[in-house]
Amino acid sequence: MKAIILSIGDELLNGQVVNTNASWISSKLHENGIEVIRTLQIRDDLEDILRFMGESMSEADVVIVTGGLGPTRDDITKQALCKYFNDKLILHSPTLEHIQHLFGRKEIQLLESNRRQAEIPSKSRPLTNAIGTAPGLWFEDKGKILVALPGVPFEMERIVEESILPALRDQVGEVFISRTVLTQGMGESMLAHRISDWEERLPAHIKLAYLPQPGIVRLRLTAHGSDREKLVQEINGRFEELDKIIPESIFGHGEDKLEKLVGDLLTEKNMTLSLAESCTGGYLSHLITSVAGSSRYYAGGIVSYSNLLKKDLLGVSASTLDQYGAVSREVVEEMARGARKVSGTDYAIAVSGIAGPDGGTDDKPVGTVWIALSGPSVTFAKKFCFGNHRYRNIRRSALAALNMLRVELMASR
Amino acid sequence: MKAIILSIGDELLNGQVVNTNASWISSKLHENGIEVIRTLQIRDDLEDILRFMGESMSEADVVIVTGGLGPTRDDITKQALCKYFNDKLILHSPTLEHIQHLFGRKEIQLLESNRRQAEIPSKSRPLTNAIGTAPGLWFEDKGKILVALPGVPFEMERIVEESILPALRDQVGEVFISRTVLTQGMGESMLAHRISDWEERLPAHIKLAYLPQPGIVRLRLTAHGSDREKLVQEINGRFEELDKIIPESIFGHGEDKLEKLVGDLLTEKNMTLSLAESCTGGYLSHLITSVAGSSRYYAGGIVSYSNLLKKDLLGVSASTLDQYGAVSREVVEEMARGARKVSGTDYAIAVSGIAGPDGGTDDKPVGTVWIALSGPSVTFAKKFCFGNHRYRNIRRSALAALNMLRVELMASR
Repeated sequence: MKAIILSIGDELLNGQVVNTNASWISSKLHENGIEVIRTLQIRDDLEDILRFMGESMSEADVVIVTGGLGPTRDDITKQALCKYFNDKLILHSPTLEHIQHLFGRKEIQLLESNRRQAEIPSKSRPLTNAIGTAPGLWFEDKGKILVALPGVPFEMERIVEESILPALRDQVGEVFISRTVLTQGMGESMLAHRISDWEERLPAHIKLAYLPQPGIVRLRLTAHGSDREKLVQEINGRFEELDKIIPESIFGHGEDKLEKLVGDLLTEKNMTLSLAESCTGGYLSHLITSVAGSSRYYAGGIVSYSNLLKKDLLGVSASTLDQYGAVSREVVEEMARGARKVSGTDYAIAVSGIAGPDGGTDDKPVGTVWIALSGPSVTFAKKFCFGNHRYRNIRRSALAALNMLRVELMASR
Repeated sequence: MKAIILSIGDELLNGQVVNTNASWISSKLHENGIEVIRTLQIRDDLEDILRFMGESMSEADVVIVTGGLGPTRDDITKQALCKYFNDKLILHSPTLEHIQHLFGRKEIQLLESNRRQAEIPSKSRPLTNAIGTAPGLWFEDKGKILVALPGVPFEMERIVEESILPALRDQVGEVFISRTVLTQGMGESMLAHRISDWEERLPAHIKLAYLPQPGIVRLRLTAHGSDREKLVQEINGRFEELDKIIPESIFGHGEDKLEKLVGDLLTEKNMTLSLAESCTGGYLSHLITSVAGSSRYYAGGIVSYSNLLKKDLLGVSASTLDQYGAVSREVVEEMARGARKVSGTDYAIAVSGIAGPDGGTDDKPVGTVWIALSGPSVTFAKKFCFGNHRYRNIRRSALAALNMLRVELMASR
């Protein structure tokens, strides 16, 4: 099954908006066994829209159109759809009620332009947009499918997840299953080396993709066949094998966040956490507090960028700083013990390193990072050697620190 | 002058990579008066590449192709270019020397595949890729231009800035000038209201665009005409007028970062800063330390997520916390004074608020944030009412705090 994605909007072509919709939809279609053969961004221009709708319908089985369903001047997509399908707009009462409900809640008066959003082409089937005013529109014509969606990402994503993917899965001859595990601590090539035997044993109907991000590599398995249950079991089995090969690296699945998983483990064990950050400069604290409800287990932390704060707030001794330097096992362990003591938490993490671009020496080049973990029964530290890029060093340090805590919490489970 | 952007790569169509190149190039072309009429992402498929190269060349004056110039299997773009232009590859010695120089520095052996990157179609003019192995390739044919670029964003961006935009500017009949100012503290609609008189007075040849991001709205003026110097003066004059209307909101130009500007001001005045963060949870500290060299003026800070840390580390009194609550003018001012005292810095910023989604009350709904600034001569606080979205509340709080400090530092300049 082949698909083309057509994104409509002048704002996509003059640099005002980055089109993330097309890649998000591509990814979802791919995971469901639908091959995206092309994506296009085109102008709010009736002639262009009609031309590329026609071309796409003749070459693909499914055409996904985004944008141009809004209440204002760029409401041109519905006009184009009517022209293309030789159709006319009719008022769709459930949609009107939904819009009135949305506006009622917000206590904003319903404008004529909003009311017009309840008009849909008569040959289309509306797809509920629970969080917005413009419904998705599903057309079938000569065995082909065309779906028009609002351009607002979170509205579009919800309609795709709730209405489109389930319907398309029924149309795909084969069953496709896609699952992702998340790994931390190894780059793509090291990971590929460590799991090469496992990768080579994968059968032909299961494909592996490496999806790297700074500090995290996602491993995606996509399997196709006829029996959904069997495929799920097969993929789960393969991932269980993988978990035995790199148990400390795999931290989660799908959309999991390391900071959320660590928070869940702390909550489960009724334990608390504090931080002492130097080179990560508050980023680790930011990751932890990006999780709603983190105040239940996170007491706070100290960003001890200066040595004065390391001494005065964390109790790191001047002689340790002098003898070993701020980026050392000794200092980072004292920082962690100090943070734990001053905050009265069960665990504390401390990070000290050279994020760069300056500050490196022959002994301790840019990218050298020490991370310590202090807990109820033990304090220990690990040294990491990251790269030259400041932001990536900060991010990789923070993720490595979270993973150290995760491994420790899992071990004492 | 019309342009089409063609991005080549299977990885763009299966969700492995988000194509940010097309929107970046679109933005740059638009700013230089070139209208992007379409962008396409297509497969690593010779037939597709030839088809869309041909179609694009027939409809646009400039075609920008990205991707497929790498050293591996997807080196298919050069093959397609040779076929399309009826051309053959020749060894380009300066490129080979450049590649050898790049690899020499990295002490990696030159592979045959890397050597092949020095082969370019004979009809093309190579565009130096200072930081990568694949040069850009510039073709002219029947009055049209086609440029092929590597897909790696920072390599592509540098070639566009250094070689392509200067050359295209010469071809555009008119002169186009584009400048951006950055504003903080007002949403798009409030900003539009405040500057509506100024906006209405803009002449027809100067266009305004609002480019909003969380916490920041960029205002872009694009002017066209015949005299570059005159247009630059006109835009600068308009922005000077704007600066008188919203002086506290405009913090910079172009690619400026608020955290960098504040750092520059502190450096200029030889002043130091510390923080006491509650609801921003370390994000403000992260922004400040994302600037290389920030340790010169930033001592560090305390993320006092718990009231215990507010009391023990910052010296906030228990009675103030009891009487006014953690999100109050009184507490946030005590936090700022405490941070300044404990760190011995000239300035301290404190932030306390309800980021959400939980924790709001009728009195203090989610989005209520107090920010205090304590300096050598004064301590004061401001209340902000942001929205319901946790991440946006955190980001807007941090930017508002930085802008408060910027305004204070500018006033005492």
